Amino acid sequence: MKTYTMDLALLSNGQRVSYHNITEEVKQAVKESKITNGICVVQSPHTTCSVIFEEFVHDLDFNGDEFLQVDLNRILDKIIPRELSEETNYRYPGPKHLEFLMGLKDPNYPSDPGTILNGDAHIRASLFGSSETFIVKDTALQIGSVGYVYFIDFDQNRKRNRKCQLIVMGD
Amino acid sequence: MKTYTMDLALLSNGQRVSYHNITEEVKQAVKESKITNGICVVQSPHTTCSVIFEEFVHDLDFNGDEFLQVDLNRILDKIIPRELSEETNYRYPGPKHLEFLMGLKDPNYPSDPGTILNGDAHIRASLFGSSETFIVKDTALQIGSVGYVYFIDFDQNRKRNRKCQLIVMGD
Amino acid sequence: MKTYTMDLALLSNGQRVSYHNITEEVKQAVKESKITNGICVVQSPHTTCSVIFEEFVHDLDFNGDEFLQVDLNRILDKIIPRELSEETNYRYPGPKHLEFLMGLKDPNYPSDPGTILNGDAHIRASLFGSSETFIVKDTALQIGSVGYVYFIDFDQNRKRNRKCQLIVMGD
Repeated sequence: MKTYTMDLALLSNGQRVSYHNITEEVKQAVKESKITNGICVVQSPHTTCSVIFEEFVHDLDFNGDEFLQVDLNRILDKIIPRELSEETNYRYPGPKHLEFLMGLKDPNYPSDPGTILNGDAHIRASLFGSSETFIVKDTALQIGSVGYVYFIDFDQNRKRNRKCQLIVMGD
Repeated sequence: MKTYTMDLALLSNGQRVSYHNITEEVKQAVKESKITNGICVVQSPHTTCSVIFEEFVHDLDFNGDEFLQVDLNRILDKIIPRELSEETNYRYPGPKHLEFLMGLKDPNYPSDPGTILNGDAHIRASLFGSSETFIVKDTALQIGSVGYVYFIDFDQNRKRNRKCQLIVMGD
Repeated sequence: MKTYTMDLALLSNGQRVSYHNITEEVKQAVKESKITNGICVVQSPHTTCSVIFEEFVHDLDFNGDEFLQVDLNRILDKIIPRELSEETNYRYPGPKHLEFLMGLKDPNYPSDPGTILNGDAHIRASLFGSSETFIVKDTALQIGSVGYVYFIDFDQNRKRNRKCQLIVMGD
């Protein structure tokens, strides 16, 4: 058996949900792995990001988001509303957790507490899941003719450097 | 390590969400793989279909749908409403994408644009995920005594020939 | 290739959604597997339980639930309301299925039909998925600095002994 790993570096836009079409990179990893039959796992190590399998849509709104992304954002804003201020219903993050996050030496956690009001992003990411697993058969990623792989950053509060991790395993 | 793949051919009903109980086929693939310990990935290569793990229910409604499926349909119709006409809130598919889909030489994309109003099916499928991964231990699929595997086609607009793909990997 | 399996025994609280932080156990399994590169699948064999990847929050409500769990419960109570009586909208379980479940010789299915009104737990578990797959790289589980693995029991009707299953596969 062989394993082949790849990390992708992605920059979110910091103003709305970020959708990264990473299909070409995933196909590239499968190719470089030289694996004939097996699986490819695409995973986010961040708790406010997800990986989904979706159609690519040629029409974009004025922000450059594809129409299915616009539709998904509208539905999510209704069922898992944004945490825009302390006056929303969210309990997250809470005083102790805020203190913990502000005390992290990690440069990914900046000094503005307002950017931590992202409870909606955490819940959305849990719902969509942190990974997706695809079958590799006869050296090809099994995603049909109109299927694409997207990495989603649900955190809308600030620009962030994100990592998407891939592993291809098989023979 | 061994890998064993199997493709299932499924026909959706074209009038409502289609739920296919594929548990026997998945168990059969595990058996034929002769794998003792490993995993079984069950995946949809279509962006309007999902794979879930759910209980089988003995009671059916007049359509032949199991009661948990009826309950799930009712909830989804509320939170991700159907795109039944251009007058709904969905932006999908958009003029350019419609032109692209109608121009596909693929026989799976017919000439009636009305059948492409399936934005709800795309979003539902992203939410439930395109695959599910099960552990195989001592040659047995780990799904408990009342657990079953279902392939869901969320596209309600037309009958479609669908494929569900399986891979069993392990020793 | 190597495979390494581990089963966790968990007891739910029987009064509200149970969240089990199993991160240490998952890391322990990866360590004991002696696998350098591969994957770790964490799976529920129960159809009312899920596995998620989420941040650990230091603040707890009076029940001892973390703030993100409180937020998630509140949102789920709205979009997938609890089945608290026969007067709710749920069709599950239905007369034939109730008879089937009451007739099971399995000690996990007790003699009180009221505890079977858990259609909400089934639908929530399908939505979040029965498993999560994590990449193992250079012997480390790839979950970032603030990521944790939780096993959720969505069944709020009775205390239950639950099993969470793990497999680590790789080289």
